[in-house]
Amino acid sequence: MSRFLSKEYQALEPYTPGEQPQQKKLIKLNTNESPYPPSPFVYRSIDQFEAENLRLYSDPEAKQLVKAIAETYQVEPSNILVGNGSDELLAFSFMAFQNLQKKVYYPTISYGFYPVYANVYGMQKCEIPLDENLKVNPKDYYNLDGTIVIANPNAPTGIALTLQEIEAIVLSNPNNLVLIDEAYVDFGAESCLPLIHKYDNLLVIQTFSKSRNLAGARIGFAVANPDIIADLNRIKFSFNPYNLNRLSILAGTAAMQDKDYFRKCTSEIIRTRTDFVEEMEQLDFEILPSKANFVFAKHKNLSGKEYFTALREKSILVRYFEKDPIQEYVRITIGAPDEMAALIKASKDILGIEENIE
Amino acid sequence: MSRFLSKEYQALEPYTPGEQPQQKKLIKLNTNESPYPPSPFVYRSIDQFEAENLRLYSDPEAKQLVKAIAETYQVEPSNILVGNGSDELLAFSFMAFQNLQKKVYYPTISYGFYPVYANVYGMQKCEIPLDENLKVNPKDYYNLDGTIVIANPNAPTGIALTLQEIEAIVLSNPNNLVLIDEAYVDFGAESCLPLIHKYDNLLVIQTFSKSRNLAGARIGFAVANPDIIADLNRIKFSFNPYNLNRLSILAGTAAMQDKDYFRKCTSEIIRTRTDFVEEMEQLDFEILPSKANFVFAKHKNLSGKEYFTALREKSILVRYFEKDPIQEYVRITIGAPDEMAALIKASKDILGIEENIE
Repeated sequence: MSRFLSKEYQALEPYTPGEQPQQKKLIKLNTNESPYPPSPFVYRSIDQFEAENLRLYSDPEAKQLVKAIAETYQVEPSNILVGNGSDELLAFSFMAFQNLQKKVYYPTISYGFYPVYANVYGMQKCEIPLDENLKVNPKDYYNLDGTIVIANPNAPTGIALTLQEIEAIVLSNPNNLVLIDEAYVDFGAESCLPLIHKYDNLLVIQTFSKSRNLAGARIGFAVANPDIIADLNRIKFSFNPYNLNRLSILAGTAAMQDKDYFRKCTSEIIRTRTDFVEEMEQLDFEILPSKANFVFAKHKNLSGKEYFTALREKSILVRYFEKDPIQEYVRITIGAPDEMAALIKASKDILGIEENIE
Repeated sequence: MSRFLSKEYQALEPYTPGEQPQQKKLIKLNTNESPYPPSPFVYRSIDQFEAENLRLYSDPEAKQLVKAIAETYQVEPSNILVGNGSDELLAFSFMAFQNLQKKVYYPTISYGFYPVYANVYGMQKCEIPLDENLKVNPKDYYNLDGTIVIANPNAPTGIALTLQEIEAIVLSNPNNLVLIDEAYVDFGAESCLPLIHKYDNLLVIQTFSKSRNLAGARIGFAVANPDIIADLNRIKFSFNPYNLNRLSILAGTAAMQDKDYFRKCTSEIIRTRTDFVEEMEQLDFEILPSKANFVFAKHKNLSGKEYFTALREKSILVRYFEKDPIQEYVRITIGAPDEMAALIKASKDILGIEENIE
């Protein structure tokens, strides 16, 4: 720490990203990336890219990409802002809407970045516990007095609220902004995006990192009524106007337009998840009902930390959170079928279950 | 504006980026981009890029790119932080070092983003006028009581301070952070980067947008002692950890490593600038002594606005600032020789000077 750092940030504890190992041989099921490559149209957009153009600034409004998103979700470009990853849009949102109450409500167990942003903007962190099934109880979020942030499906549990449950929260908080982080929505949950036409206090954030197979291109988008988007633009143009580079704008546009490939990849992951959960349950794992591209799993004979460590020793990387009440679980990304098979095999080894010899 | 926007941002006036016209036929000399394409190694790095990898997150530390910069400037990786454009690093710096005094000193005429950042972080804007030659007077910056931000060379004047002048400012402000924004330093000015080993209150920010021909890849870098870099990392990892995408990391690394091409392009621009200034002076333009890839020009028979508008009518785009005491000037980016020739020809037309018939 230098002697110049502002006092309010001296105790700030930054977010810890999931490990990005250099070791190539690891089976990497720890950061919820897609096991599938981006759309072939993304390849083509990069192949045909005229590198010559990199000498020129990118379009600060990323109109091409915004248009592709607007067409997909049948909203207007004025309903959309794109960001350098959805994290940037979360940061802009916390910044814009830290508001007078300075209170933010979110589940105790959720995306670990929410308390970091709350700390950055000096907001009061009002953390609401999950219910006994590790589910967000919508009624806990009725009639509050501050900004509300909910990941749906939630992370790291994978459990989703229904569209009706989300709408009830939005409806009961007419004077609070409700931010729904839909990073994982495309793997079987219902998006509340269409509600933006009905409610002016709803802000939906999605990402290209999971269901669009583009974590490395860093693209997220926010959808809301034009006034909220104008507020976020005011922040963006006061912070970093050219926030998307030329190649990511192209790659994102191509990925968004290839709707068939998107459906193919997400269905494939849902199918792999279904098969994987079944096999894990046969090994006596308890798996929370997931609508995401990951599952949250525990076993009565194995602590979360033991399981995490034992998998790591077998070169399989999953994510473990040393935090009550989820310390008995590990979060496992749904990868390709052969990766899940390798994890099942490793789990049998760890549990001392003999393979059937057929 | 929505009813949720925090009070402190309601009057915020965002930065206005230079126009990015869609019209292809314009001669674009308004945003100080390079007229030359990026290094051939950048082309190759994109051609050989495995788009498959875009499914995976980028390295949040961008180690490959940091290493290339560290080797070039003979500093350690711990002296460097890369950003999504140098604007992001300026934003992080204002955020980190808004400090207790909440005062920031910078020249009245300089990069238009400094007052925006000061407003964002509620800092007192202490603007110091230029001298009668539109030069920053180093003595005005001695023994101050707040953060100091100086673009060197300054924009939009192009005038540079010497290394000794910068050092004197840093030396006389041991308890203030001094941020030197060297976006344009590679076109003939002296970088104060080596001084980071000597002073723990110096922060230098550079960009790939100008001398590395990569405005569209969005890459900047900060260089300072490891404590200051650690502070900026604390902000970055609390705001947007994966701030650089995979393709920009590759492109930036390739550009930084191609030192010959860098020297070739910057020398070419310096030569074009020398020739251009000579020709403009023959037309009775007054040109400030520029060490940047742009010049600031005025003519006694033509107001700045008239000249800007007349050039625009001839499809040549330059930048005009309607602000005292620079309202008689226009800022002209140094483009390719044929673009400068076209501007000279247009200027003769505008001034009613007949071409010599040879």
